Amino acid sequence: MNSSYKKINQQDVDQLIQIAGKENIKFKDDIHEKYSHDELGTAISYPEVVVLATDKFVVQKVMQYAYEETIPVTVRGAGTGLVGGAVPVLGGILLDMTPMNKILELDKTNLTLTVQPGVKLYEIYECVEPEGLFYAPDPGQKLASIGGNISTNAGGMRAIKYGTTREWVRALEVVTPKGELLTFGSKVVKNSTGYGLKDLIIGSEGTLAVIVTATLKLIPKPRFSKSLLVAFENREKAIEASPRLIKDYVLPTAVEFFEKQALGYSEAFFGKTIENDHFNAYLLLSYDANDEEALNRDLAYVEKLVLKEYGALEAFVVDAQSKRSNIWNVRGGFLEAIKASSDFIDECDVVLPRSNISEFFAHVRKVSEEMNVRIPYFGHIGDGNLHIYLCKDNVSDEEWKERVKEGFDRLYSKAFELGGLVSGEHGIGLAKKSYMHKLLGDEQLMLMRGIKQVFDPKYILNPKKIV
Amino acid sequence: MNSSYKKINQQDVDQLIQIAGKENIKFKDDIHEKYSHDELGTAISYPEVVVLATDKFVVQKVMQYAYEETIPVTVRGAGTGLVGGAVPVLGGILLDMTPMNKILELDKTNLTLTVQPGVKLYEIYECVEPEGLFYAPDPGQKLASIGGNISTNAGGMRAIKYGTTREWVRALEVVTPKGELLTFGSKVVKNSTGYGLKDLIIGSEGTLAVIVTATLKLIPKPRFSKSLLVAFENREKAIEASPRLIKDYVLPTAVEFFEKQALGYSEAFFGKTIENDHFNAYLLLSYDANDEEALNRDLAYVEKLVLKEYGALEAFVVDAQSKRSNIWNVRGGFLEAIKASSDFIDECDVVLPRSNISEFFAHVRKVSEEMNVRIPYFGHIGDGNLHIYLCKDNVSDEEWKERVKEGFDRLYSKAFELGGLVSGEHGIGLAKKSYMHKLLGDEQLMLMRGIKQVFDPKYILNPKKIV
Repeated sequence: MNSSYKKINQQDVDQLIQIAGKENIKFKDDIHEKYSHDELGTAISYPEVVVLATDKFVVQKVMQYAYEETIPVTVRGAGTGLVGGAVPVLGGILLDMTPMNKILELDKTNLTLTVQPGVKLYEIYECVEPEGLFYAPDPGQKLASIGGNISTNAGGMRAIKYGTTREWVRALEVVTPKGELLTFGSKVVKNSTGYGLKDLIIGSEGTLAVIVTATLKLIPKPRFSKSLLVAFENREKAIEASPRLIKDYVLPTAVEFFEKQALGYSEAFFGKTIENDHFNAYLLLSYDANDEEALNRDLAYVEKLVLKEYGALEAFVVDAQSKRSNIWNVRGGFLEAIKASSDFIDECDVVLPRSNISEFFAHVRKVSEEMNVRIPYFGHIGDGNLHIYLCKDNVSDEEWKERVKEGFDRLYSKAFELGGLVSGEHGIGLAKKSYMHKLLGDEQLMLMRGIKQVFDPKYILNPKKIV
Repeated sequence: MNSSYKKINQQDVDQLIQIAGKENIKFKDDIHEKYSHDELGTAISYPEVVVLATDKFVVQKVMQYAYEETIPVTVRGAGTGLVGGAVPVLGGILLDMTPMNKILELDKTNLTLTVQPGVKLYEIYECVEPEGLFYAPDPGQKLASIGGNISTNAGGMRAIKYGTTREWVRALEVVTPKGELLTFGSKVVKNSTGYGLKDLIIGSEGTLAVIVTATLKLIPKPRFSKSLLVAFENREKAIEASPRLIKDYVLPTAVEFFEKQALGYSEAFFGKTIENDHFNAYLLLSYDANDEEALNRDLAYVEKLVLKEYGALEAFVVDAQSKRSNIWNVRGGFLEAIKASSDFIDECDVVLPRSNISEFFAHVRKVSEEMNVRIPYFGHIGDGNLHIYLCKDNVSDEEWKERVKEGFDRLYSKAFELGGLVSGEHGIGLAKKSYMHKLLGDEQLMLMRGIKQVFDPKYILNPKKIV
C-alpha cells in the first residue's frame, strides 16, 4: 500500500501534454462524467486527469512519468465492467485505451489476430468471420473492449465447448508500472518457457500491467450452428437436465438457463418475448458443426433425449429460418431489461459446480423472500456461471447498502459452501474484494499481494482493486 | 538465492522418519541411482535423502520441516523429464511423489477427474475412456505422471484442437514451500476470482509449490477418430501444406511431420516401419468426430485437397482396420529409436510460428552439415513444436559439451529470430535456463525471480531451476 501518492498539479498536466499531445489530455471541467464510473454505477470517483492513449509508446512514457512521480494510474477500456474495476478511486491519471482501436494483423498462416486493446469485441467477429475464421469467446456485451475482456478473463456463452478468453490469447504486449515494454508469449501454439506471465496478466483487471497489444488465437469457423429451445415444467427439472446434456452426447457450445420471469422483464422493457413463452423454465442449447447433416442428426437425437428421458415438455429447433431466431436477441437483452426495471442493481456472477446449481437457486429464492428484495436471475448454466441481480427498487441509499451487504453475504456464503467461486467472468474489482478475501483466505491473499508488489512496487496501477 | 542450505544429518533423517515412516525414507546406500537424474541423462546429482510421499499431509510436514531447517527439496514424479527438472542439484531432500498414485474421484456431473500427482497419464485414459469421457492432452510419454505433465504444461499431439495440459486443469491443491496447503481453482468451468495462481503453478516445474491433488477437466469422448498419412516429394512441400490443412477445412486433432530418416531410425532400432515408407516427407493427420459419416466425408475432402491442391503424392486413410494402423506406434517410438542410435542425445523442443518452420528446418540441416553433427528430428508441426536431437555419437565428453553449446546456440538464435520460444512442452529445468534468459531478457527474468521469492522466500524448492 502507498499512502503518499502525489496530487496532480499543473506541471504534471504540462508534462502529460508533452507526452501525449494537448488534444489527448482532459483536465478539470473537460473530464467527462463517464470516467467516474463503470456499469456498476454505485462506485463513483473522478480521475484528476484523463490521458487518451494513442499508442504504446505514449502508454510507456505515461507509466514512466507516473512511476517516477508516484501518481496512481487506472486503465479504462469501454467502461462496460460491472465491479468498479475501472473506477479511479484514488484519482490520479485515467488512461483511456479506446483510441488504441486498430486491428494490426490477421495472420492466416498462424491463425492469429493481433489487435490493440481498444478494439471492440464485435469488431473482432466482423474482421475474422468473413475470412471463415472464428474467435470463440462470446461474452454478452459485444461493445466491450478486448483489453477489458482479457483483463477480466471474460467467459460468455460458449465457454463449455471453447473455454474462456484465457484460452484464446496467444501473446500480450504490456507496459509494466515501471514503464517497461514486455511481450509475454508469442504466436506459437504451445509454450513451456518459464512462468506463465501471460496467464498472470489475464484476469488481473489492470492491476499488474497495461495491455497494449494482444495476439488472439483463431480457428476455422464451424460452418453450421443451430439452437434448441427446451421447455420444462419447473426450474429443478431444467437444471437437472443440464449436466446430462453435456455428458451424454455431443458437447453443446452453450447451455443457457432462464425462467418465465426473465422473459417477463424482456417483454416489459423491450416488448420482446419468444413464441411459446408460457413455460416455467427453459434451457437454450446451441450446437455447432462443420457438417450440416451430422448437426441435424445431433439435434434430432438431443430432442428425443430431452423429451423421452430428461422430462422436457417441448423442444423447438431454432435456426436462422425459424420464427424463433429472435431468441438469442431476447436472451442477450436480459441484463439490460433487468437494469431498466430498477433505479440501481448490483450483481453476483458467482460460479458453481454444475451439480450444486439447483440447491443454490433454491437459496436465492429463499433469500429474496426472507429479505423481501427482488432478485431476478438467469445464467450460463452449462458452465455453472449464474447472473443474479439485487434490485434497489427505490429504497433509501442507506437501506440499499445494508441490503446489498446482507444479500451478498448470504449468497456468497452459500456459494462457497457449495464449492463455488466469487466470480465466473466479471472479476473482483472493487465490489467483490471482501468476498474474495473471505473465500481465498489470508495465505492466498498474501501470495497475490506479493505478486502485485513484484510488478508494481509503488502500488500505482489501479490501486485498491482485487488485492 | 541462498548459500546457506543445511546439510542433512542423522537427526534430520530421524525427524523425516517420524514424519513419513521408516519404510518411506531412503538414506545413503539405500538411495536408488534413478533419483540422481531424469531422462536428460547428462545432469547427475544425488539427493541426500529420499522421502516417498504417501499423502498430502506428509508433504506438508516435510515442507514445514525443510523450510524451518532451510533444506533444499526437489519434487520428482515418474522421472521422464528431458531437461533435468527433477535432478536434485543441491542434494537435500528428494520428494518422490509416485506413491501418491490414487484416482480420487470421477465426477460425472461436473465432468472432472480428481487425482493424486503420481497417477500416470495412461491410467487417466484407462479410467475415463470406458465411461465415454475424454482427457484430451496426448504427450508422447504415457508413463509420465500427471504431476509432471502439469509442471511442464505438457502438450503432445492433440494441442492444435484441444490445447495443452493447462487448458485441462480445473484446480490444483498444492503445498507451498512454507508448508501451507492451498487450493487454486475449483471444479467450476469459469474463474475470474483474483490472480491466476493455478495457471502460475502450471508449467512452473516444481519451483513454486508441490502439487498434491489435481482436478482435471473431461469432455464426452468423440466417438470416431481416423488418421490420414500424406506423402510428399520433399520437406518443404509437406511443411507448406500444414498451415493450409489447419485453416482451410475442419480442424485436425494432430498434424505430425516426419521424414524418411525418422522411419529409418524406427526400422533400424525396432524393426518397425510403415507400408509405403519410400517417400521423402510425410504428414500424419488425425481427425475426430461424433458422426462417422461426417468424419468420412471430411477425410475424403481432405484427401482430395492434399492431392489436388497441396501437391501431395499419395494419401492413405489409417483406421483401426487398415494395415497402416501401426503408424501411430511407429510415430510414438521415434524418440526411443533416436536415443538408441547414440550414447547420448540432447534435445531442443523449440516451438515456432507455423509460418517459419520451413526456414528453421533448413537452418537445422545447415547446422548439422557445418558442425558435422548428426541432428535427427520430427515434430508436432501443426502446433510448431519441433523435436530436434543432437547426437553425441561417441565423441569425447569435452567435445560433446562444446558441440551441444554451439549447436544449441545456433538453433535457438535462429528460432528466436523467427519468433520462436525455447520450449513447447518439455520445460526449461536446468538444461535450457541460459537460452530462456537470453530470449526473455532481464526484465522478465526479474519478474519471474520476484514471483519465485514470493512463493519461496528461502529458495528451498527445486533450486537452480528456471529462474
